[in-house]
Amino acid sequence: MKTILSFDIGGTNIRAGLFNEKSNKPIYQKKVKTSGQNRTPLENIIALIDEIQTDHPQLDAISLAVPGNVDDKKGIIIQAPNVGGWKNIPLRQIIQDRFNITPSIENDASMAAYGEWKHGAGKNHQYIFYMTISTGIGAAVIDDGHLITGFRGLGTEKGHMTILDGGPVCSCGKRGHLEALASGPGIAAYVHKKMAEGVPTSLPDDSKPTAELIASAAKNGDQLSIDAFQMAGYYLGVGIANYLHIFNPSCIILGGGVSFSGNILMEPLMASLKEHVISQEYLKEVEITPAQLGDDAGLIGAFQWSMDHL
Amino acid sequence: MKTILSFDIGGTNIRAGLFNEKSNKPIYQKKVKTSGQNRTPLENIIALIDEIQTDHPQLDAISLAVPGNVDDKKGIIIQAPNVGGWKNIPLRQIIQDRFNITPSIENDASMAAYGEWKHGAGKNHQYIFYMTISTGIGAAVIDDGHLITGFRGLGTEKGHMTILDGGPVCSCGKRGHLEALASGPGIAAYVHKKMAEGVPTSLPDDSKPTAELIASAAKNGDQLSIDAFQMAGYYLGVGIANYLHIFNPSCIILGGGVSFSGNILMEPLMASLKEHVISQEYLKEVEITPAQLGDDAGLIGAFQWSMDHL
Repeated sequence: MKTILSFDIGGTNIRAGLFNEKSNKPIYQKKVKTSGQNRTPLENIIALIDEIQTDHPQLDAISLAVPGNVDDKKGIIIQAPNVGGWKNIPLRQIIQDRFNITPSIENDASMAAYGEWKHGAGKNHQYIFYMTISTGIGAAVIDDGHLITGFRGLGTEKGHMTILDGGPVCSCGKRGHLEALASGPGIAAYVHKKMAEGVPTSLPDDSKPTAELIASAAKNGDQLSIDAFQMAGYYLGVGIANYLHIFNPSCIILGGGVSFSGNILMEPLMASLKEHVISQEYLKEVEITPAQLGDDAGLIGAFQWSMDHL
Repeated sequence: MKTILSFDIGGTNIRAGLFNEKSNKPIYQKKVKTSGQNRTPLENIIALIDEIQTDHPQLDAISLAVPGNVDDKKGIIIQAPNVGGWKNIPLRQIIQDRFNITPSIENDASMAAYGEWKHGAGKNHQYIFYMTISTGIGAAVIDDGHLITGFRGLGTEKGHMTILDGGPVCSCGKRGHLEALASGPGIAAYVHKKMAEGVPTSLPDDSKPTAELIASAAKNGDQLSIDAFQMAGYYLGVGIANYLHIFNPSCIILGGGVSFSGNILMEPLMASLKEHVISQEYLKEVEITPAQLGDDAGLIGAFQWSMDHL
């Protein structure tokens, strides 16, 4: 029976899960702070492998989901700014040299989509558009059972799609990206700007409220907060319509904290999506569904990806 | 030896090419007006098959490239407004009933991309982004040798990507699409608007100049015409950058009349592309090349597609 060690690496935590081929429930898991214990993220990953391998000497594969640009053909992290500023890290080579196992290294949104496809909300589909909306916006596509990553693995920056040329500045420094308009920080930036302009709100005026706080205020009837989610939903509709024209999926899976804001987001999103598709055919027979695996999507996806590529 | 009858159906002409499996040069070809000889487009297609089958009774496959929304799984033309207003035409069934051959039916930009991949500018690549810029903007992607069309085949409307929400009206009726901003009619509409506003130009003021005429004027130094191509190139750079973030191709193939306008288009396009990618990694090791098969791309692509799916 094959044993696979999977990692979901985040800016705050590194999660490890040990799986065997029979189940998508880990037989062991552990979470550590990404830069905790006075170690670099890389030292923490290596320490976790060391520790788990001591109890489970027979590892058949190691699989890592990384939040950033990953050259998956060469196993190099081109950049993952949230993981200790990683840039050009030959992660595959480092792990291979140390443990004599060639790990697979993929983008985290891609692995979350893969997990949702194989074990979550997309199980009955072969054409999936997955989008995670939280601090950033990530997305991934499975077309006819084929995960799209591109020739060096960089086709994973699907939140960085210009939909309003010249619009607000994005986390990447460019303007008018979907991520700038509809991510948590995008929603918050809109509210902060309007508060600075003196728009009345029930939000405390000495704070820089987060998207989560704004969502609560919206649910309690605060008009500025409602407007902010209306805007985010509108632009998500624009962006998802673009993706429907490009990919024509049969299943749209929405995950990430912001996506679970309920009607304040989903009503304007659906109205905008219907308005922006060039034909209602793009919504025919299409399932639009919340993600099911929560925080485990990346970990399960990375495990399954390795299993399927052993 | 297999014999394949391929069609490239356009708004003006229907082109037929008879191929055998050994070569991408047709052994016979014929062009008729799409709605000529007092016949509907469908009657013209059937008459062509009849005629060619008389001399070549042994047809192994029929393949059709159609300019519109094609449900390629069911062989139904959902809409092809330029082909006699086609809407919900069960083309596969009609041809099968009549000739006892199940034809393959695909979008024309997809087939042109397939042709360029197998026999043209993309021969040495497995990750291709193909874009044709003329009356409309079409695009198609091959990712790891896999042509992306989506679950009903509608993932082919890649020119209908909103990049400037609220921008100029597109041929489809929506606003701010790449096609509205950078196609031939998009370039012409920009110039007509500026002429109406009284912007000076060497273009004749009693005419509605076409993109072709505007390109000539730009090459002769007309500032308004130069500005129009600057704008189109700029927005093409925005749109192609989006596609690089989504697909990370190793080869970008540009075809269609507008794409052959030379430096007046390519200089602003390349500057904008470099400005809008979130990392220059997206342009590393990437070949940007003109299409090679000209008007034959769709015909050759449809032939090869059928060959590969026999």
